[in-house]
Amino acid sequence: MSTPEFDFVTPIERRGTASLKWQRYEEQDILPMWVADMDFAAPPAVQKALRQAVERGVFGYGEIPSGLIDTFVAWCAEQYHWAIEAEWLVWLPGVVPGLHLAIEAELAPEAGLAVPQPVYPPIRQLGRLRARPLVSVPSEATDWTPYLTDATQALVLCHPHNPSGQVATRADLEQLAQLALERDLLVISDEIWADLLLDPQQRHLPFAALNPDAAARSITLMAPSKTFNIAGLSCAVAIIPDPERRVRFRRQMRGMMPDMNYLGLLAAQAAWQEGAAWLAALKQQLNANLDQLEHWLQDYPEIGFTRPQATFVAWLDLRQLGLNEQDFLEGGVALSLGEAFGTDGYLRLNFGCPSAQLDAALQRMARVIQTRRGR
Amino acid sequence: MSTPEFDFVTPIERRGTASLKWQRYEEQDILPMWVADMDFAAPPAVQKALRQAVERGVFGYGEIPSGLIDTFVAWCAEQYHWAIEAEWLVWLPGVVPGLHLAIEAELAPEAGLAVPQPVYPPIRQLGRLRARPLVSVPSEATDWTPYLTDATQALVLCHPHNPSGQVATRADLEQLAQLALERDLLVISDEIWADLLLDPQQRHLPFAALNPDAAARSITLMAPSKTFNIAGLSCAVAIIPDPERRVRFRRQMRGMMPDMNYLGLLAAQAAWQEGAAWLAALKQQLNANLDQLEHWLQDYPEIGFTRPQATFVAWLDLRQLGLNEQDFLEGGVALSLGEAFGTDGYLRLNFGCPSAQLDAALQRMARVIQTRRGR
Repeated sequence: MSTPEFDFVTPIERRGTASLKWQRYEEQDILPMWVADMDFAAPPAVQKALRQAVERGVFGYGEIPSGLIDTFVAWCAEQYHWAIEAEWLVWLPGVVPGLHLAIEAELAPEAGLAVPQPVYPPIRQLGRLRARPLVSVPSEATDWTPYLTDATQALVLCHPHNPSGQVATRADLEQLAQLALERDLLVISDEIWADLLLDPQQRHLPFAALNPDAAARSITLMAPSKTFNIAGLSCAVAIIPDPERRVRFRRQMRGMMPDMNYLGLLAAQAAWQEGAAWLAALKQQLNANLDQLEHWLQDYPEIGFTRPQATFVAWLDLRQLGLNEQDFLEGGVALSLGEAFGTDGYLRLNFGCPSAQLDAALQRMARVIQTRRGR
Repeated sequence: MSTPEFDFVTPIERRGTASLKWQRYEEQDILPMWVADMDFAAPPAVQKALRQAVERGVFGYGEIPSGLIDTFVAWCAEQYHWAIEAEWLVWLPGVVPGLHLAIEAELAPEAGLAVPQPVYPPIRQLGRLRARPLVSVPSEATDWTPYLTDATQALVLCHPHNPSGQVATRADLEQLAQLALERDLLVISDEIWADLLLDPQQRHLPFAALNPDAAARSITLMAPSKTFNIAGLSCAVAIIPDPERRVRFRRQMRGMMPDMNYLGLLAAQAAWQEGAAWLAALKQQLNANLDQLEHWLQDYPEIGFTRPQATFVAWLDLRQLGLNEQDFLEGGVALSLGEAFGTDGYLRLNFGCPSAQLDAALQRMARVIQTRRGR
């Protein structure tokens, strides 16, 4: 699907371009449908801003452009109906460092975390890497209470949820906010997928937007990375309404966090300022890809699947078929291993690509499945 | 001075471009001669590589290109006669985080540091930010022994030295290596200015290149940032010959360090691969600017000054004139405050700019000095 303005059809050669997704398998005939970036060009407005910077030619130290702050505040208002203050924002070169900084800034050394399972691997790894007790809560659970321990002092949300693509309802979030209030918990909310709710009528509800108490105990992490396919440009933002938390967070950053890179800042500003129409077109393409995937899945009822409400990844339950990552790799398709997300027997398929590429991957996967069935 | 290929003359408008150096004073008639980036365009090869990436248009997650590693290994061999192994390299989004990571990875919580004074402010701040005892060693001292305490377990070098621009000799470095061997000290060497020795005949000697023991106890930090004026692109590298130190350093990075940004990786590769002729031309321009500065200084013998052997900054002793940062700011020139480097009464002048801009700044500074003298 393409519009006169935006092209989501023409394949872009990413082999030999230092792409994490493509470089790993580029010597082999393997379609990379794993790590979560898309095989689409960034919005024209992003390309234009970068082109202008490259023509100017000076790439010295960048400063947060005041236009970036205004633009992001406006984005939150328009897209989420969330009124934020400019001073709540702390700019960061990535969401994952933001998770780590939030923990170091706010939690005593022995304090523990609760995280969903399955979940984005860097969230699962927070316990080990920050040397803290971690409890896992089934991602479909709406009441986290039974899973918490006395050590638990923070909830880490992945909202919308990666890998399932499910979106917590207001009621779900309110239940979490109530629990956090009762137990006086910090809430760290990774909302990097906020803009990719696939129903164009549905609006993302930030955890911190629920009520003033939720805001005060929250550190929300957002980025233009997934929305506009600029994960490689290292621009993210922590939204920290409570001023004392913000001071502690900034203190934790000092020295350890690199400066923001100049081109990432310019790209982020252009994306939020002028990228809305591109994003609407992208969602059409992602919905079409999802329809294509669902149609394909009709032939394989053994594969467990719930259509994602958000993201560009599909979480496939392969347990009944007994097929694993290696089987599909041998069949020419690289998928993300469910085990890394905390659940064996699943694989994650990235459908953020031209539909011809998705079709080619699904044909290869079909051959792998048919071979297995034929045995 | 310009060659047919490289233009160091034409001014580039940096106001309104989210430049840290220019944004601070852009509402005022103040020439920014402070933070250490240059008002020159990056080498054409860097612009070309970035232009190609922008035209490709996909900015997903980057991977260290194998060409980048080969190129940097070759750069070390050619420029420093330093034979390094590809596996010694750990890529980082900045030198300053590298200093912090090295300390956290290698030193017990109570272990202290020795650093030169004056020195680049983030080196001075390592003690406070990492909560460790820090001793300062006069930057002209060649024997650091009298300054160390029982707590000292690491030496932090700034080599070549910022702000003085002086270059340690082989004998100086050997004395430090001997001390480190005797006391079993870690040596963290910030060599970000390595490529900007202004005598084209002089070659940078990395601390780690002295001998195998020096290599084994060293963590060297380098970057294309100063050399090619791409500080805003956030690409740096730690060179860690000892495999166990490397494992600890990488462990310390996990989660906390953001991914490398895609465009920074491409720019670094292009710079090291094709930037040598540009660098040679840049040095000619910097030497011409330094001649211009020395000529100007003949009228002001009250200003203490030693011609830097490296860098594009001049360290000016204003104590006799009794002029401070604020006096020059009021006269329309922004300089870096000596106090931030640990020495009152000095100011640092960045001369990495077109000579007309340097001339304008020096004229403004002359008026400030003449006004003071006239009193």
